[in-house]
Amino acid sequence: MSESELDRRHKERTRKHKEVVDAKIAKATIDKGLLLVLTGNGKGKSSSAFGMVARTLGYGRKAAIFQFIKGAKLVGERAFFDAHPDVRWEKCGEGFTWDTQDRQADIANARAGWEKAKEALADPDVHLVVLDELTYPVNYGYLSLDDIMPAIAARPPMQHVVITGRAAHERIVEAADTVSAIRDVKHAFRSGVRAQEGIDW
Amino acid sequence: MSESELDRRHKERTRKHKEVVDAKIAKATIDKGLLLVLTGNGKGKSSSAFGMVARTLGYGRKAAIFQFIKGAKLVGERAFFDAHPDVRWEKCGEGFTWDTQDRQADIANARAGWEKAKEALADPDVHLVVLDELTYPVNYGYLSLDDIMPAIAARPPMQHVVITGRAAHERIVEAADTVSAIRDVKHAFRSGVRAQEGIDW
Repeated sequence: MSESELDRRHKERTRKHKEVVDAKIAKATIDKGLLLVLTGNGKGKSSSAFGMVARTLGYGRKAAIFQFIKGAKLVGERAFFDAHPDVRWEKCGEGFTWDTQDRQADIANARAGWEKAKEALADPDVHLVVLDELTYPVNYGYLSLDDIMPAIAARPPMQHVVITGRAAHERIVEAADTVSAIRDVKHAFRSGVRAQEGIDW
Repeated sequence: MSESELDRRHKERTRKHKEVVDAKIAKATIDKGLLLVLTGNGKGKSSSAFGMVARTLGYGRKAAIFQFIKGAKLVGERAFFDAHPDVRWEKCGEGFTWDTQDRQADIANARAGWEKAKEALADPDVHLVVLDELTYPVNYGYLSLDDIMPAIAARPPMQHVVITGRAAHERIVEAADTVSAIRDVKHAFRSGVRAQEGIDW
């Protein structure tokens, strides 16, 4: 087939496809604050949430980030966003359970963090609330979904919430508008590569 | 079981777990520039790449972003990152094929974008190169993997590259160090919610 014939067919096919896409878009008319969940054991859950923070800041809106596990170490995302005037960054943990080895301190950190997160979930000026790695203190029983789900449901109607972490609880998935499950197809760590600056932290 | 007994067992269990984790970490000693692929049809591929840009900038390093499909519209991530002195942002497309409906223009944009991306892939000062939605011009046959894969393989050894987009080609997956497949479990769009500012763009 000649290039010009390919081009002509492409134009016809994409024109028809646009009608299908436009019809779908025409049906999606609702604006609302979304509850998004990034779960699964692959790389990309927290980094995706931080990408949404960048988008939010790009529109001059405010974001609040509550980091429920990492915390002891200054990570790149915190160095970058914490300095931004439209970001509230709260450290709500001191590390993985096997690093802290202190159940009571982990519980206290998670609960103190959740109290702060509730403030953001009640503030209509906050466009995006990131509850980073919230699934872990929930799954460990340190925080109760009976507290969390009503606070999320009662938030300002245009506020977006992103929850990240492995093994998101069924109640979180059910309440969510958008859920992505990130599958670990391949990971450099298993080939002997340690966590890399700018990529993993 | 009493709280103090729970705490004691937790400490013992996490201490043992730390030995396992530390042994794994001790085996991962390599530092190298990674090729990361974020594929699958769920939400979070590009936003994850932008989160890694934030991490990179948090360490005072440089990032270069080549956006192969989106482009006509000013999106939040571009508004945010394009203004940053350590970011090179290149628009390498004018929209989805069904929006442009112009095969020759799409091919020309993709090829011009790839020529610019090759410059970044040869520059050791660039810590992270994002080839956002590169999978589409590859799968459409507009760009050749015979050009792309050697340029990626020959890049500076500590430079990281992130490729995003659905249906990543087998050659890209094979060459990658880390691959995440993002599954669309649930998406607000199918419930009639249109793309939301700060979340989807």
